[in-house]
Amino acid sequence: MRTTVGIIGGGPAGLLLARLLHRAGIDSVVLENRDRAYVEQRQRAGILEQGTVDALRACGAGARMDREGLEHHGIELRFDRRGHRIDFPALTGGRSVMVYAQTEVVKDLVALQLAEGGPLLFEARALAVEGADTGSPVVRYTHRGREQTLSCDVVVGCDGFHGIARSAIPEAARRTYERTYPYSWLGILADVPPSCDELIYAHSPRGFALHSMRTPSVSRLYLQVPNGTDPADWSEERIWEELDARFAVDTDWTLERGPITAKSVTPMRSWVTEPMRHGSLFLAGDAAHIVPPTGAKGLNLAVSDVVVLARALEHRQRTGSAELLDAYSDTCLRRVWRAEHFSYFMTTALHTDPEQSDFDGRLQLAQLHRIADSTAAATELAENYTGLPIR
Amino acid sequence: MRTTVGIIGGGPAGLLLARLLHRAGIDSVVLENRDRAYVEQRQRAGILEQGTVDALRACGAGARMDREGLEHHGIELRFDRRGHRIDFPALTGGRSVMVYAQTEVVKDLVALQLAEGGPLLFEARALAVEGADTGSPVVRYTHRGREQTLSCDVVVGCDGFHGIARSAIPEAARRTYERTYPYSWLGILADVPPSCDELIYAHSPRGFALHSMRTPSVSRLYLQVPNGTDPADWSEERIWEELDARFAVDTDWTLERGPITAKSVTPMRSWVTEPMRHGSLFLAGDAAHIVPPTGAKGLNLAVSDVVVLARALEHRQRTGSAELLDAYSDTCLRRVWRAEHFSYFMTTALHTDPEQSDFDGRLQLAQLHRIADSTAAATELAENYTGLPIR
Repeated sequence: MRTTVGIIGGGPAGLLLARLLHRAGIDSVVLENRDRAYVEQRQRAGILEQGTVDALRACGAGARMDREGLEHHGIELRFDRRGHRIDFPALTGGRSVMVYAQTEVVKDLVALQLAEGGPLLFEARALAVEGADTGSPVVRYTHRGREQTLSCDVVVGCDGFHGIARSAIPEAARRTYERTYPYSWLGILADVPPSCDELIYAHSPRGFALHSMRTPSVSRLYLQVPNGTDPADWSEERIWEELDARFAVDTDWTLERGPITAKSVTPMRSWVTEPMRHGSLFLAGDAAHIVPPTGAKGLNLAVSDVVVLARALEHRQRTGSAELLDAYSDTCLRRVWRAEHFSYFMTTALHTDPEQSDFDGRLQLAQLHRIADSTAAATELAENYTGLPIR
Repeated sequence: MRTTVGIIGGGPAGLLLARLLHRAGIDSVVLENRDRAYVEQRQRAGILEQGTVDALRACGAGARMDREGLEHHGIELRFDRRGHRIDFPALTGGRSVMVYAQTEVVKDLVALQLAEGGPLLFEARALAVEGADTGSPVVRYTHRGREQTLSCDVVVGCDGFHGIARSAIPEAARRTYERTYPYSWLGILADVPPSCDELIYAHSPRGFALHSMRTPSVSRLYLQVPNGTDPADWSEERIWEELDARFAVDTDWTLERGPITAKSVTPMRSWVTEPMRHGSLFLAGDAAHIVPPTGAKGLNLAVSDVVVLARALEHRQRTGSAELLDAYSDTCLRRVWRAEHFSYFMTTALHTDPEQSDFDGRLQLAQLHRIADSTAAATELAENYTGLPIR
């Protein structure tokens, strides 16, 4: 098979890129390792920045999001048994975020692509990218038990942290930056309406907790737990009691309980590989960078990567100039490092490091009090959280 | 001897407190360990916040400062071979700082105190505070070879980190918070006009450097060096070459050289003891808290402590109410922890930790770029640097 842009990975990055290219009249093929049902139900992020919302609308995938998504105008920071609201529109000149689960974004994009896009192959396992140094790269993959090839002008690796695209860049030509954290998240889905209309980021001496939601009837809750935690060690009762303890506040607020329908543990990692382009191969999303989830930046970074890439490919097609493609890696990495810093900041500001000194604990509280008390500090958080414009 | 307020330590905190009390009609005695010449020439900080300037003026010690001090409307952050100015008045609604050396502040306060204040005894070595739990504490000290006692209503420990006042608070009644840093400052005084009208905070892969000044003809420069560095290992030539390398910038700016007249190494420490009051004993300044010098907060915190304390003592004298005295520790500690956090932030943002990962280094640059590019982030720095109002 042959196409202009071969896309490895049918997550939000790969699917959105295919949609954006389709609207620009550029052919693409998407190879997705898993089957459709798997892709459409894996639980991931759920906070969309303004720029992400705009990109989804621009490619025709905004209708259900606009109907079912929950627009959020702020978050609550909770510590020392008090809540402090961060008012996004007031602090950022009108910006907000949308709560709409990544699984739903994927469903919308899959449906659109199958209805009117180029080929989207499920259970198509990419094996290798060959000729990344040339102008005619090839993706070798297996589909329906047979090994096949996809010849392209450009290959885009949207295949996540564990994907194979990145390995086509010689070790000597890339550099990796990494940080791991001494804690993980135990995340649950519960069949109970959210106990608050907005997200609550809670810092307590017992650790971090996050109150979020998927829909008006499904709560999404997270607890900081030690690395290596087995979800089986956390009974429903133990989870609710720990959530109660960490969200404890000096008002009559109560965390509503309901049946827990999913339970999983996610480690926290910061990770960047540079550059994000090697010859005809481009990396986007988790294939190039991972952030800890505290700042809700992972999905949004993937979207901004492919928005920048689609614009660059369209520019080349229209003008013949590779200028924007050549700038792709630098353009994306500026935003990536900003998001890496913000994600690190949110993570270390709110979690309790088991090794931290009493001094570090007091510094955390001083920082949180400052954000609660100061317009400048709250604005810095709000601008980063709602997302900087995609340039 | 007997007085209302016994002040241990004739540094800026103790001397300013004596002046403020004098103007409020409250008696005090200041006991200073060293002789006058020593006190008047020890090199310390040199950046006065607006609140510090106001306090010095209010107690009549502002005349020479207003004549000879240098008002600074910004600082430069320099990294990646570029300079980025932080404009204080534009970001803070008109606030700025004054460059006027602590030694000069001390000279002005000593002269005033000797001319029209209560007793200021040099070479009066405090040995112990007794009866801090009672309403009639006593300071035992030696003066002119004889042991003496000072009976007071209140004792204030302004005797610095190595002072004796703090030890009168039982171990069980106080708690200490601490952080050390894996680097020190090599500071020099040089007889050469400053190479720039404002301070330059430089971050480079070789480490931090700071360009500052004492007067229009004396430069004050600092280099990050490893802990345990012997100043003797740093020749004049080596110092200037290292400063050149760290301040290197893509413009035609040059660091002017001149004879180095003083050279010393200072370790970096964050340290807080709580509470700042025990019975009739109050702690102020370095006796209660130390910050690394990067944020220029040490002297300013000492001043805000004694402004709060003088106001509380005056309030009790005027109204009989101990309400403000009882709030002294909490009132000061809120500001102390804000300054501890800011000093930590400035220190870790600008220095190169010898143990830091490549990831940490990239985060530092991301943070510095954000401050250079974002009004919110620059405002957060400027508000903290110029100093929050003394409440």
